[in-house]
Amino acid sequence: MYMNLFDKLFPIHRSITGDGVRKTLSILDELVPIKQYEYPTGMECFDWTIPKEWNIKEAYIKDSRGKTILDIKDHNLHLVGYSVPVWGTFSKQQLMRHLHTLPDMPLAIPYVTSYYKENWGFCVQHDRLGEFTDDEYEVVIDTSMEPGSLTIGEGFIQGETDQEILFSTYVCHPSMAVNELSGPIVQTFIYQYLLEQENLKYSYRFLYVPETIGSIAYLSQHGEKLKENVAAGYVVTCVGHGESFTYKKSKRGDTLADKAALHVLHKTAASSKILEWSPFGSDERQYCSQAFNLPVGSLMKTMYGDYPEYHTSLDNRELISEKAMKEAVDTYISIIQTIEANETYKSTHIHCEPKLDKRGLYPSVGGTRGAKEKDEVSMITNLLAFSDGNHDLIDIANKINKLAPELNETALLLTEKDLLRKCDPLPVEAMKAIVGQIG
Amino acid sequence: MYMNLFDKLFPIHRSITGDGVRKTLSILDELVPIKQYEYPTGMECFDWTIPKEWNIKEAYIKDSRGKTILDIKDHNLHLVGYSVPVWGTFSKQQLMRHLHTLPDMPLAIPYVTSYYKENWGFCVQHDRLGEFTDDEYEVVIDTSMEPGSLTIGEGFIQGETDQEILFSTYVCHPSMAVNELSGPIVQTFIYQYLLEQENLKYSYRFLYVPETIGSIAYLSQHGEKLKENVAAGYVVTCVGHGESFTYKKSKRGDTLADKAALHVLHKTAASSKILEWSPFGSDERQYCSQAFNLPVGSLMKTMYGDYPEYHTSLDNRELISEKAMKEAVDTYISIIQTIEANETYKSTHIHCEPKLDKRGLYPSVGGTRGAKEKDEVSMITNLLAFSDGNHDLIDIANKINKLAPELNETALLLTEKDLLRKCDPLPVEAMKAIVGQIG
Amino acid sequence: MYMNLFDKLFPIHRSITGDGVRKTLSILDELVPIKQYEYPTGMECFDWTIPKEWNIKEAYIKDSRGKTILDIKDHNLHLVGYSVPVWGTFSKQQLMRHLHTLPDMPLAIPYVTSYYKENWGFCVQHDRLGEFTDDEYEVVIDTSMEPGSLTIGEGFIQGETDQEILFSTYVCHPSMAVNELSGPIVQTFIYQYLLEQENLKYSYRFLYVPETIGSIAYLSQHGEKLKENVAAGYVVTCVGHGESFTYKKSKRGDTLADKAALHVLHKTAASSKILEWSPFGSDERQYCSQAFNLPVGSLMKTMYGDYPEYHTSLDNRELISEKAMKEAVDTYISIIQTIEANETYKSTHIHCEPKLDKRGLYPSVGGTRGAKEKDEVSMITNLLAFSDGNHDLIDIANKINKLAPELNETALLLTEKDLLRKCDPLPVEAMKAIVGQIG
Repeated sequence: MYMNLFDKLFPIHRSITGDGVRKTLSILDELVPIKQYEYPTGMECFDWTIPKEWNIKEAYIKDSRGKTILDIKDHNLHLVGYSVPVWGTFSKQQLMRHLHTLPDMPLAIPYVTSYYKENWGFCVQHDRLGEFTDDEYEVVIDTSMEPGSLTIGEGFIQGETDQEILFSTYVCHPSMAVNELSGPIVQTFIYQYLLEQENLKYSYRFLYVPETIGSIAYLSQHGEKLKENVAAGYVVTCVGHGESFTYKKSKRGDTLADKAALHVLHKTAASSKILEWSPFGSDERQYCSQAFNLPVGSLMKTMYGDYPEYHTSLDNRELISEKAMKEAVDTYISIIQTIEANETYKSTHIHCEPKLDKRGLYPSVGGTRGAKEKDEVSMITNLLAFSDGNHDLIDIANKINKLAPELNETALLLTEKDLLRKCDPLPVEAMKAIVGQIG
Repeated sequence: MYMNLFDKLFPIHRSITGDGVRKTLSILDELVPIKQYEYPTGMECFDWTIPKEWNIKEAYIKDSRGKTILDIKDHNLHLVGYSVPVWGTFSKQQLMRHLHTLPDMPLAIPYVTSYYKENWGFCVQHDRLGEFTDDEYEVVIDTSMEPGSLTIGEGFIQGETDQEILFSTYVCHPSMAVNELSGPIVQTFIYQYLLEQENLKYSYRFLYVPETIGSIAYLSQHGEKLKENVAAGYVVTCVGHGESFTYKKSKRGDTLADKAALHVLHKTAASSKILEWSPFGSDERQYCSQAFNLPVGSLMKTMYGDYPEYHTSLDNRELISEKAMKEAVDTYISIIQTIEANETYKSTHIHCEPKLDKRGLYPSVGGTRGAKEKDEVSMITNLLAFSDGNHDLIDIANKINKLAPELNETALLLTEKDLLRKCDPLPVEAMKAIVGQIG
Repeated sequence: MYMNLFDKLFPIHRSITGDGVRKTLSILDELVPIKQYEYPTGMECFDWTIPKEWNIKEAYIKDSRGKTILDIKDHNLHLVGYSVPVWGTFSKQQLMRHLHTLPDMPLAIPYVTSYYKENWGFCVQHDRLGEFTDDEYEVVIDTSMEPGSLTIGEGFIQGETDQEILFSTYVCHPSMAVNELSGPIVQTFIYQYLLEQENLKYSYRFLYVPETIGSIAYLSQHGEKLKENVAAGYVVTCVGHGESFTYKKSKRGDTLADKAALHVLHKTAASSKILEWSPFGSDERQYCSQAFNLPVGSLMKTMYGDYPEYHTSLDNRELISEKAMKEAVDTYISIIQTIEANETYKSTHIHCEPKLDKRGLYPSVGGTRGAKEKDEVSMITNLLAFSDGNHDLIDIANKINKLAPELNETALLLTEKDLLRKCDPLPVEAMKAIVGQIG
């Protein structure tokens, strides 16, 4: 399922603009509804400008005997992203100035782009440099760089409130697996899961953007609305490889996004690495910029920079695994369930404990309770003791080493019995109000 | 001394009501003055109602040949607490539904009660089930369950202020040693120690209550007064077994009760376990309920649930030790001395250090000081440096690894020399004011 | 260089008053400008009074045959500091009451003083007591104790602002190396370094005081001005021995002095010990007294009390090393550079990241950056992300494991490019304002 989708998306030549993005989004749209929005070339987005649209027909190098020695048909990474059109003959010396290799990874094709400065070039395995023995080469780069637009994909599920959970991933890297295809694949299966759920409390937004320029463009149009509505969010990237999880906190570091993710990882992950926010990373750099400072973190498996194949042709089908992607989807779903379940209650009986047995909530014969009954009694008494309007379900679950959703049924039962009353507003709104006062 | 009292109290059949409680309190009253208060059946106490009074004359099972095979004369735990009166013949099958055993502790009689649901039953060692070979049995449970009252014992020592230190223990468990007799025994010897003291700054209250219903009943009548006056309090339970201490914090977690207990344990206990408050426990569940939130913790030795004999007939004279109870009394006394000694001072000379030698407070020949003099100089200089109205004696003692009472004499000397002035009000009142602002 | 100065200063007989101090300051004045100020005998300084001035011509003991057996010509420490004049014959028994030894360090002459109580005495190696075999001894102590004055040395460098960095060391110990000569030597070379610097942001003050009475006297005249102006300060003492550093925090514990010192030690010191402020120590006892509470810590190498030779004749030329003193000077200079470089900025582009390449701040070809470029990009992006008026350069440098001065050039570049704007006022003033609200 995951790998089928992977195989469809891998060969497409994506860049920050062009038909590769549109084709990618169309394939994902077969699984989940994704609207495509176009941002025209020249549009100003804060400090940035939407560049010309880049598309590619073919690109190759032939030697003096007319033999093709490099062709993007073999690997999309052979061409430097955003290379200008070229049709000519170059001396070996001239060509070499446009060839990129990785001397310390001689079997890997590097990933190189030149989005914002006109340039052209090819990338090749360092070990293959010896094949360039001729004095002259024919270079063809049949690309177009014209006024056009940048494409962003968006999905949305309306929940009971406009408070929303944001997921964002990027779709601008050609033919690399962990970074980037694991991101859109995992996000799409999270989206699919949510489409099947009923009575969602929160709304859910799924962005598929060209990295950096895409999130900046989106924020330039919708940033203030996100600031108002986003209760928690995650940048979904590098979720295709490795056993353990890495969670990078939001810049604020104590948001609902962080609280829910850390709660789930602490309870379910065998091992995980927790990082403070930094400006080294992906689109959380924009979402958490000072003017927005959204509650957006990023749950990853082995992250960018932590594996040697990153940003090379070795980040391929062999590196990625369905198992890792599935674990990422499951953990994200567990986080969503935690956020959905999370509520803050107030106990109605605050003068000593309420009498549980007269409400059928406590075994009437003392001293002979089994493990399951003890568990239920523990949830009841902790919910009643700590529900004071300042502790939400996650807080109480943390105290008794449960997942917040495990407390949900008991909390609803106690609400029915009029022992708990749900607090308004949603915990995230209260949290935002507090952060507003402090920050 | 401790064990003599133990031997007098152990055989009494206590429950949450009835003459067993009264007899227990009368025996303790021979050592320390304890007033008995009666709360009548049917009285409403918050969400609870005082139950009918339960008393017991005899209870036994005879086999078909008239041979007694189970009798509470042998062990009080044989009868399920609050069993209704029964006089009749039962088939083996019928009887078995009323027999409680512990299959994984086959030599122990379990402790079972049914306070709030009419029922009857017997408890027996699992290994003895094989003795029940007959088809019919005569069952006699000669108990009474009539309108009456619940009994609470109270002692009180008036100190210089009405601010009080609360001790509470429970007297409703029949014939078990660590839980519960160590509690009333230790509390009584703490009480006896305090009766011998003069010039106590704080008042002291000692409650002997049937667990849960007793503290709820007391709080329903006196809760507001306790809220006003209690500076610190402790539930005294499970103080009869084990080497190390367990301290369970008050719900607030940073009260004078916690500060003093942690200070003493840190300095004097070889090892100790510190627990956050939880609703699993004893009467601190009521004292710390949201409406009261009293500064009440619980200093224990091996605690309920941490030893396998808990709530069985194996929690007996062999498990408890005078040594453990003595250590608990000594540690509680050290905590009391700490609270009594604790004061907040302000230095009068805040522009550089005052000159100590001209007040006879410093050896005039430099460089040749012995350990004792250094110790005294350390206490003097630290008291002067940190007494700024925000650090009390416990804070300063923590800095130099002393017990707060060890600083008392020096603090009084510095007060005489007009280098320190005592702050009003009592530190606890200041602390309560601060907590009031925050909480 | 360091040891030449040491050899000039070591033989001088210093005490808290007298010509020894003046001579010491005059020798240092040959290297850096030091003004001498005199505080007259009898002058009241808070709780203290300037004592009579003490000077010494000679002091010796002769046996009954006229043979000199103890003479301060051999070692200044042989005489108890502030010994009154004595000229007479004493029985062995009488003499012994005036002889000080260290039985557990039999080869060391102890350091003993009696500043504020009239007394006299000699100090001798315990092993030499056996030489005192005669019945009578001639004792000559040709000292003077007359109305005079106490001398304080002061240097000052005016910077761009009146906000100042305070250095303080003491000059009252005779013939000991680590404590005290390392202090004035290191402070003098720090001072010399600063004299060579241009465009200093802060002003710098260098105090050379007799310990305790000197800093108290100075504070009695200038304490309010220091309170207004001192941004950070350090007591320079025990900086002549050992590999690792010891930093004793200011009493407030979170001042610029502490922040800068801990930042530098964390980044540069192989090992260091961090101590909370206590009233055991040197002149930070006065600078941090409640009325002033200056941001003054103390960076030391092996500190007073941590080496057995402390306050004896074994604290000598063999114990001290130029290497240790040089390391101390270098580390203090690094702290100064940190404080000078430290600024708080605000990013001007807070809606997403600014576009760096169009300002020439980012390599335009992605994916092939070298370590140096990555380092520069890391500094740029972290400065932009965290410069929100609440994080100063030290904070940001801590995040990326740099020294704050390493960020300076990049911060200035970003300011030129109008991406950062420097905040007013100086960080220390903002910090003082905050501390004022809290404390």
